[in-house]
Parts: sequence; structure tokens; C-alpha cells
Amino acid sequence: SAHLGGDGRRKSCWYEEEIEQDLRWCFALNSILHTGASQYQDIALLDTKPFGKALVIDGKLQSAEIDEFIYHESLVHPALLHHLNPKTVFIMGGGEGSTAREILRHGTVEKVVMCDIDEEVVDFCKSYLVVNREAFCDSRLHLIINDARAELQTRQDCFDVIIGDLADPIEGGPCYQLYTKSFYESTVKTRLNEGGVFVTQAGPAGVFSHTEVFSCIYNTLRQVFKYVVPYSAHIPSYADTWGWVMASDTPFTVDAEELDTRAKRRMKGENRYLDGKTFASASMLSKVVRKTLAKETQVYTEGTAKFIYGHGAGHRSQPHA
Amino acid sequence: SAHLGGDGRRKSCWYEEEIEQDLRWCFALNSILHTGASQYQDIALLDTKPFGKALVIDGKLQSAEIDEFIYHESLVHPALLHHLNPKTVFIMGGGEGSTAREILRHGTVEKVVMCDIDEEVVDFCKSYLVVNREAFCDSRLHLIINDARAELQTRQDCFDVIIGDLADPIEGGPCYQLYTKSFYESTVKTRLNEGGVFVTQAGPAGVFSHTEVFSCIYNTLRQVFKYVVPYSAHIPSYADTWGWVMASDTPFTVDAEELDTRAKRRMKGENRYLDGKTFASASMLSKVVRKTLAKETQVYTEGTAKFIYGHGAGHRSQPHA
Amino acid sequence: SAHLGGDGRRKSCWYEEEIEQDLRWCFALNSILHTGASQYQDIALLDTKPFGKALVIDGKLQSAEIDEFIYHESLVHPALLHHLNPKTVFIMGGGEGSTAREILRHGTVEKVVMCDIDEEVVDFCKSYLVVNREAFCDSRLHLIINDARAELQTRQDCFDVIIGDLADPIEGGPCYQLYTKSFYESTVKTRLNEGGVFVTQAGPAGVFSHTEVFSCIYNTLRQVFKYVVPYSAHIPSYADTWGWVMASDTPFTVDAEELDTRAKRRMKGENRYLDGKTFASASMLSKVVRKTLAKETQVYTEGTAKFIYGHGAGHRSQPHA
Amino acid sequence: SAHLGGDGRRKSCWYEEEIEQDLRWCFALNSILHTGASQYQDIALLDTKPFGKALVIDGKLQSAEIDEFIYHESLVHPALLHHLNPKTVFIMGGGEGSTAREILRHGTVEKVVMCDIDEEVVDFCKSYLVVNREAFCDSRLHLIINDARAELQTRQDCFDVIIGDLADPIEGGPCYQLYTKSFYESTVKTRLNEGGVFVTQAGPAGVFSHTEVFSCIYNTLRQVFKYVVPYSAHIPSYADTWGWVMASDTPFTVDAEELDTRAKRRMKGENRYLDGKTFASASMLSKVVRKTLAKETQVYTEGTAKFIYGHGAGHRSQPHA
Repeated sequence: SAHLGGDGRRKSCWYEEEIEQDLRWCFALNSILHTGASQYQDIALLDTKPFGKALVIDGKLQSAEIDEFIYHESLVHPALLHHLNPKTVFIMGGGEGSTAREILRHGTVEKVVMCDIDEEVVDFCKSYLVVNREAFCDSRLHLIINDARAELQTRQDCFDVIIGDLADPIEGGPCYQLYTKSFYESTVKTRLNEGGVFVTQAGPAGVFSHTEVFSCIYNTLRQVFKYVVPYSAHIPSYADTWGWVMASDTPFTVDAEELDTRAKRRMKGENRYLDGKTFASASMLSKVVRKTLAKETQVYTEGTAKFIYGHGAGHRSQPHA
Repeated sequence: SAHLGGDGRRKSCWYEEEIEQDLRWCFALNSILHTGASQYQDIALLDTKPFGKALVIDGKLQSAEIDEFIYHESLVHPALLHHLNPKTVFIMGGGEGSTAREILRHGTVEKVVMCDIDEEVVDFCKSYLVVNREAFCDSRLHLIINDARAELQTRQDCFDVIIGDLADPIEGGPCYQLYTKSFYESTVKTRLNEGGVFVTQAGPAGVFSHTEVFSCIYNTLRQVFKYVVPYSAHIPSYADTWGWVMASDTPFTVDAEELDTRAKRRMKGENRYLDGKTFASASMLSKVVRKTLAKETQVYTEGTAKFIYGHGAGHRSQPHA
Repeated sequence: SAHLGGDGRRKSCWYEEEIEQDLRWCFALNSILHTGASQYQDIALLDTKPFGKALVIDGKLQSAEIDEFIYHESLVHPALLHHLNPKTVFIMGGGEGSTAREILRHGTVEKVVMCDIDEEVVDFCKSYLVVNREAFCDSRLHLIINDARAELQTRQDCFDVIIGDLADPIEGGPCYQLYTKSFYESTVKTRLNEGGVFVTQAGPAGVFSHTEVFSCIYNTLRQVFKYVVPYSAHIPSYADTWGWVMASDTPFTVDAEELDTRAKRRMKGENRYLDGKTFASASMLSKVVRKTLAKETQVYTEGTAKFIYGHGAGHRSQPHA
Repeated sequence: SAHLGGDGRRKSCWYEEEIEQDLRWCFALNSILHTGASQYQDIALLDTKPFGKALVIDGKLQSAEIDEFIYHESLVHPALLHHLNPKTVFIMGGGEGSTAREILRHGTVEKVVMCDIDEEVVDFCKSYLVVNREAFCDSRLHLIINDARAELQTRQDCFDVIIGDLADPIEGGPCYQLYTKSFYESTVKTRLNEGGVFVTQAGPAGVFSHTEVFSCIYNTLRQVFKYVVPYSAHIPSYADTWGWVMASDTPFTVDAEELDTRAKRRMKGENRYLDGKTFASASMLSKVVRKTLAKETQVYTEGTAKFIYGHGAGHRSQPHA
């Protein structure tokens, strides 16, 4: 109390992320909590002043304590709430545990299979991300260390919802194969039950950044599924608007009010970010984004890919699936 | 061509903005085009790599070439398109010229009064912002150097639309007086014609930042006008979602389709960002923001104010009105 | 070994020091080892990539693992080696412990009194600076928590060498009083034995920075002592050349060779930086510095002071003496 | 005067140099005066707050207005003053013009050949470095655009002094060939007159950095010349101590006093940095540096090289010779 320093003082320690080569985003640091390295990547848990604890993989922010709920609620709940009665869910990637945590809030869910390739990252998150401890201990969660594509191709069981929580598709990157038309067609679709829903994170979706991968993921899914819904939300710690795409061969007929009703009936606790109106707004894209999506012709196939700066090794949860 | 350097090379010169004390946003620089200082503030025009030419006042980014259209289309067109037949418009602040430029695209508009207190800033923008040159020369534009409050209180004429393009309300800041209940009641409302619309920029409106001034501007306007519409959009160069509030005593009844029809009929050129659906989405706020707005009790009066970090001297167009 | 990241990778966490308002010096961080706060100041021990463990007080680097030997050998050994037979030493400040460590290497020394005002800083360094643990445990060391001026004025005993390891003299700063002519005259000199030597750190002494306090400390001591020797050395982690001033009423007659002989005879272990030739070079200042010193007229008295940027609270070991 | 901003205000635009991968040195910017690119490299003239106008090549500071005199006086005058009567001088590199400027201050000098490979850099400096304009116009200066090695091997005439003002020797770098034993032996020595002196910049020479190239340049010259004198000086804008090595087959017998006498007799104007005592101090290296030099065994030959971080493309004046 006699101490005059504190918050007014100039900050000395900083986390610096190169969002693009000519654009940086810097957070003052309280401390560097834990650092580690797996066979595939470097991992760190930082305590940042503006965004709380931050999980950083290979110099890219994955998830920040104070706003990861926006990403994870947006990834999980639209798909599960649009499904009539989701009992089984498969997560491609998701090693951080937050996606599983959100899924497990749904009372209908009986089994969640989370398949991440990087055991060290999973162990790191299990140990240090207190907020996901309960989820990691839930008996409905089945954790598998494997390449998600190999796993899905080997398994015999089908799922009500499949969720892609993977690094962005970059040519030569570790996750590219999990965004291709052939993967969606011959693997994902065949592992979905009747009425099943697929949803994937789909990279940045800002007024400029949506052309990097978002429009192309959307267009690829449009080749494979009858009904495809792209949506987005601004995530402060990412310094950008983020995108997701939900797809199914069963039409999405749930309106904002019904979404709220289902959430109330099925889910434990209340969402902080997502509700019916939020999703209605999130899925009504701005003119410039809608235009790009309508005109997009590229499809991810084994032979093509698009580049997204610096997200090559590990942006989003499962970098090497 | 033999030159191997270029874009892959590490950048040496940077513009650095302290968004908050513990958060920085940095753009690689091509050059520092012009710098100047007025009686009130420092002003600079930078050529940045990620966002093009950027107008910076007192170390705060005002407007960047590649995405200022998001801010200015959002500020101007909803109000003008919701109005039945806007002929006269008053801009409080707006010295940059972009707000006037957007207004002048409306064929119905016969007279625009732009009232900014800082002549040097206006002259600087007139000289260097090529994109607004035509607007500054338009015979319908009446440029006045004065305090906007004093000007509105002195004038006898009324306007169809009044637009607030001012720095955020900060206690002791130069623009605080232009966001109070009493100013709205006894000055703005009395200068609006029957069926008139008022709109103001309303500060950051992100998942966290909307509590700084956005909710309070909204709540203050709700005390004064019968119909109040808050809306927001993510602006990449601001590293945040931004907010505006539109208000009137006449109900806003124009739907997305009609908005598009009016834009097509009345406006010169096509918008890049804003159309009916974009506005529908922008005005459907996310759950967390809606909750704050619903519960906000604070009202800006002569005696109260809220602080917003670092925006004290000059964030947004008219810092000293 | 399969891990490809490592040292070639872009660094994410940085310590940033504002050397002056327009000059920054930034070290990549491995970790933030410990942070604390005393009644007077903030303290941190960082693990930096370029300079190893670094002690930072109030955002100013005090001492870095890999080059603190330059500062501490330069501060301690010239004075002790020029003295005929130093048995008793008084340290003003020095809470870090490194100055005591260097003194205790001299076999002639029987008693070291270290007087620092900030107990928390001393405790922090005792706990975390492994390199000084032995020194802190040496039975010849007498640690006193007190204002060094008050302590010297109260004590009855005299010393062979008195060492100033204090923050720079800044008007209104905590250490200014310990650099004045009257303090040197009526306190320091009276506490020195016959043949005694006084030495003090004397701030930056670079081609430009020597005008900040170095020349004035030199000139002040010249008013009080018959023989005054200023000298300097470049310290990489400080990004500057640093200065010290040694003073006595007995002439300094030891040449480079004799200095080496004495060091060999009296001291435990070999110096890394300082020897006879190094000191000969260090005490032969460059033309521009010699000129300023020759022309300096200012003297630190109770009424005057000179400012040095940002070093107000705690640059060098004893910030509040 | 009513304007309160100014110097106390937070700086927004910065030049940032990566001295090493984990060490940065940042100067606040007033403006980016000129930028250009040659066939070999990028070039910029910046106006920095702490160091004035700064010439930057490929992201590496070459020379700063306020302290380039330290580098250039140290490079030129010891060699010329130790020579009995220097009439002809050859500069390898030196495109900036400052080395020529210093040489031309010597009244004995009748002819200076400056041979730099990069015409665009020379033209850039001619146009923008006002301080060297007079030198570029001096009729005694012969400017040649060529590889310095090729030029020396072709020419028939000999010189009293040859000066190496080149980028550091890095394996695979543009200047490596100009630091090898065979080059010194078969080219440099054969182009020196009887009593001739060779001097070269020799990279960083700090307590740690002297092992990068300084000790090896010294050791290489020691294989070729009978008398070799290494010396160093701290250059604030480089954030390091810099080194030079002077070599001859005639002994260096000039003492500090005689050096001052010769300077006074022969040179126009007074030096700011270098005089007899400064050189005496500069050539008395510190213990740690002397030890490395004494033990250095490596010699630059066509087959070996040592790496110095980031100085590959263009640190110091002639990057591609």
C-alpha cells in the first residue's frame, strides 16, 4: 500500500506475436509459467496482463484464458444444438481440452473421443490448464493419441457430431490432409451417423483475412455436404475475427429461439458468449465476406493448398494430426 | 530482379501503438509521409505495410487507408438510409473528410455542414488525404472551424441527420461535453428536423471493451430518444470491434431488403462493407454485449464520466470540440 | 534431436529496457524467475538469452550474470589494490552482494560492513543470486539495513576503503545526498583511516553519456580529495561505457606491473576482467571525455543536482540509502 | 508554446535492429528520409532521435550522424599518423564517403583511390550525406566502382596506406575474400610502398563479441606483417565496442605526444575523438581480449571462415566487394 509502483508503471516483459511479417501483437507479461517441447513443437504457458494465461505453441497464441470461451463455445455449441440428440462426438485434435470441456456440458452426450497426435501437448495441458481438469477426468472422455485421419479411417463406429479443432490447412503443413474434399467425402461423411453434423474451425475470417483459408474451407465443404453454414466472431486475443463452418446433409432448421430453448434444456451452466441471437448474427456475414464466399472456386484436394502466414506449425489445437 | 531482398526480409521500421498500457499493436512502416502539430495535438501520416496510409493523432491511429471504409460506411449510411429523405446533414468533428465523402455519395443530400475545431488537422487532411479531395471540393460541403457544441447552440437551422464523429467521452477530455444527456436533449434534439436521425461513433464495442464507453453512450441516448439502435463491426487496423449508436424519435422500420433498395436508388457507387444484411448482423449484438447494455445504469451528465485508456487526446476525428 | 525448433526460431518473450525515452534495449527471455516488491521498489530476476540471469529493479537492469564481473571487478579492485594493506571496508549500498563477494577475495580484508537500506532487495538477492551465497555467509561480512549516510554519521570506527555502490545522483532521487561535496567532506573523509581510499560507481561514461553525472561526480570529488582517478569500461549488458571515480589524500603510485603483483599476492582466484594493463587503459580516458572533465565546473551540493534519464528509482545497487 | 506534447510524449515510430537473434536495439524515429535498393542490397537514410541521421543497409546500421566520427577517426588517423609521410591512400569499400573525408584532412595526401562495388550506395551517399559532400568533390579523390580485390590485383601503382572499410568476413559473405591470409600476402602487401601501413576495420571487439572475427583478423594479419596493432573503441550507436587492426613491416614507433604533434602539423581541423592518449588507451586492450588474441590460432584462408550474426549482407561500408 505504501508501494507506489504497480499498474501505472511501464511494462518490461512482453510476449510478441508476429501475426504477419509486418504486423505484431504484444502482451505485457506477468510471468512465463511453464515451457516445454514435444517431438513436434515448442509449447509455453504464459501469464499475460491483458489476456490472462495464454497457451502458445511454436510462437503462436492458441488460446487465452479470458476469451477462449468465444472460440470454444462457437466451435462446439452450434453443431451440438442443431443436432436433434447428440450422443457421440469425435474431436479431431483438441488436445488443449477446452473443446471436450464444452461438449461435456451437454447432458445428451454419452461419449466423446478426442484424438490428438501430440501426447506431450496433451499432457502439458492436462497438468497446467486448471480450467479443463474436470473435463480430462470425465469418464465419458476417451483420449486417443493418434493421427485423427488414421484413427477415423480405422474405426468402425460412427458419431453424431465430428469436430475439427486443428491447425489451419497450409500446403505442406501437418493438417492439410484433414481439410481436403476427399477426406471429407470418404472419411468424415462415412463416420457420421444419419442426421450427423460436422463442424470445423476455419481460420481467420476478418474483412481481409477471410480469403486466406476460410472461403476455401467453406467451398470445399460445399462440394461434399448439402447444407453448409459459415459463421464468425471477433476474438480479441487473436486480434482478428475467426471463422467456423458447420455442415450436414440434414437441413439446419433451428431458429434463434429454439436454439436457446435447447441450450437451456440440455446444457449444464449458461454460455457466456453464444446464444440464439449471437449465432444468428455470427452466421450473417458481412457483404465483403459473402461476396468472396459466393465467388470462391478453389477446393482443397490432395494437390492444392493455400498458404496462411506463420500458422504452419501449430496454430489451433492439433498441429500434427 | 536480381534483388533477393524484398518482402521476405525482416522489417526494421515500425509504428507502435499502445492500445492499452499492457497491449501493443505494431505495423511495419514504409515511410513517415508527413508530420505536423496543431495547437491541440500532434498529427502524422504514415505509410504502413499492413494497412496502407494511416492517419495518427497523438500516437493514436485514427484511420487506415485499407479499412477506413468499414468505419465510415458504418457511421454514415445506416442513419442516412433509415431517414426518409435526408437533405441536410451536420457533422460534429469529422475533420479527416471521410465522413463527408460518404455523406456526399447520397443524391438526396443538398447540404453538409462539417464543424471541426482543429483547423490544422483539417488542412493536413485536405492536403494529404487524396481519397477525400473531391469531397473537400464539393460545393455542398460547408466547412466550419469551431467547437461543435457552440456551433450547434448558435445556429438557427435544423438538420435531417446529425453525425457525431468525435473522440471518445473521457472525463476531462475534450469531447466529453458532446456525449452528455443534457447536450443531446437541449442541443442535438432541438437541431434535428421532424423525422431526424442522430448517430454517433460510440467507442470500442468488443467482448471486453464495450464496457468502456459504448454501453454508457447507448444508455445515455436511451434517456433522450425513443428509438436507439446500437451496432458494431470489427475493424482490423483498430485490433478491435467498434461501435456506433443511432437514435431517433421516429421508429426505424427499414428492413435489410429495403435498405439495399434505398442504397441502390439514392447512392453513387456501391458500398464495399455495408449492406442490408451486414447491418442486420451488426445490430444484432452478442449475448455478453446485450447483457451489459440491458443492465447499464450510468448516464453521461456534466458530473460523471468514464475513462478509456489513452484515447484522451484525440482518438477519432475531432479531439477538441 | 528430432526437434527442429530451437535456437533458429523467432523469439517470443522479451525484456525491454527504456535506456532513454527514445532508445530501447531488448533481450529475449527464457523465463521470469522471481518477482517481488519492497517498500521502495519492484524487483525481478529474469533469465535472459543474451546475458543470462538479470537482476532488474524498477524496470532498470542492475546486473547481468555474464558481465557483472566487469562492473564489480572495476568497482572494487583498483581501490583495494592501490591501498597498502586494506583490512576494513565499508560498502554504501551493495545489497546485491557482488561487491562484498569481490572484496572478500582479498586476503588482507578482515571486516566488511555492507549497509543497504532495502531489506527486501537484500533478502531477494541472498535467496536467488547463487553466485553470491558464499559471500553472504562469510563471517567477515557485517550486513546492516540502514541509510548509509545515517550509518556512517553514527559510527565511531574508521575504514581503509569506503565503496559507493549506489544509484546515480538525481535531483530528488534517493541517493543524491550520498554524492554531495558536504557528504564527502564531513562524513566520508572522516570515516577513512590514514591512507584510506574512497571509490564510487559514477554512472554512464560513454562518449555522450559521461556528461550526465560522471563529470560532475569527478569534479565534486576533486574539491574534497587531493588525488582523484576517473576510469571507465564498456559493459555490454548496459549498452554503454560505465564510469567509476577513485579518490584519496594519499597519491596513487601503483603502476600496472605492481598492481598485478599485489593482485597475485593478496587475492584468491584470478580476475577475469581487471588487471594492471586493463586499469591503465581504463583510466586513460578518450579526448572528448577528458575535455569535459577538465572543463566541468558543477559540484553536487545540497542545492544542485543533475538529471539522468529513468535512473531515478534504483539504478545500481542501493536505490534508497 | 501552448502545445504540451513534444519530447515528453511516448514515441510511436521506431527503428529496430536485431544485433543478434536474441538482442535488439531500437531508436525512436523522426522520419524515414530516403530509401533505395541497389543490385546488391537495400539502403535507407533514417532520421533517428537518439543518434541523428542513420545510414542503414539491409537492416544493419552502418553509420550514425552523431558518432560516426569515432569509427572513422579510429579507422583513418592512427595509420596515417604513424606513417612518415602518407601521400597516396587506397580505400577498399568506403562508399559512404566518411573514410575519404577523414583522409582528405591530411595535408600530405595527394591522391585517394576509393574502390566500392556498389554504385547505387555510393550515389545514395553522395546525394544525401551532406557531411561528405565536400569530400566527394575533392579533386584528390578518385572514385572507382569495382571489386576492391580485382582492382588491387589489376593496378600497377602502390600506396602508402591501404584501408579496409568493408563488411565483416563471413563464410560465404561478400567480403570474406578480402580478409584472407593469401589476399593480404599476395595482393595488399605487394601494393604497399616501402614503409606502408595497412589498416582494416575488424568487427566487434567487446568483452564477448571480440571472438567473432576480431581475434581472427588480428591473427591472420600477424601471419603476414611483422608489426600488428589491434585497438578498439566503444561506439554508442553500435551498442558495442568496435575493433580495428593496423599492420606494417615497419615498426610503429610514434608515441602519444608525437601523434598529437603530427596531427597538429599535418591535419586540417581538430579531431573530436582520437588523439595520442585516446589511441594509447584504445590499443591497450583489456585482459580478457588480450588473452583471446594471444591464444587465437585460426587464420582466414580460402577454406575457413567464422560467422558473425546478421552481418552477412552489408555491415560496414562495402558489402559486396
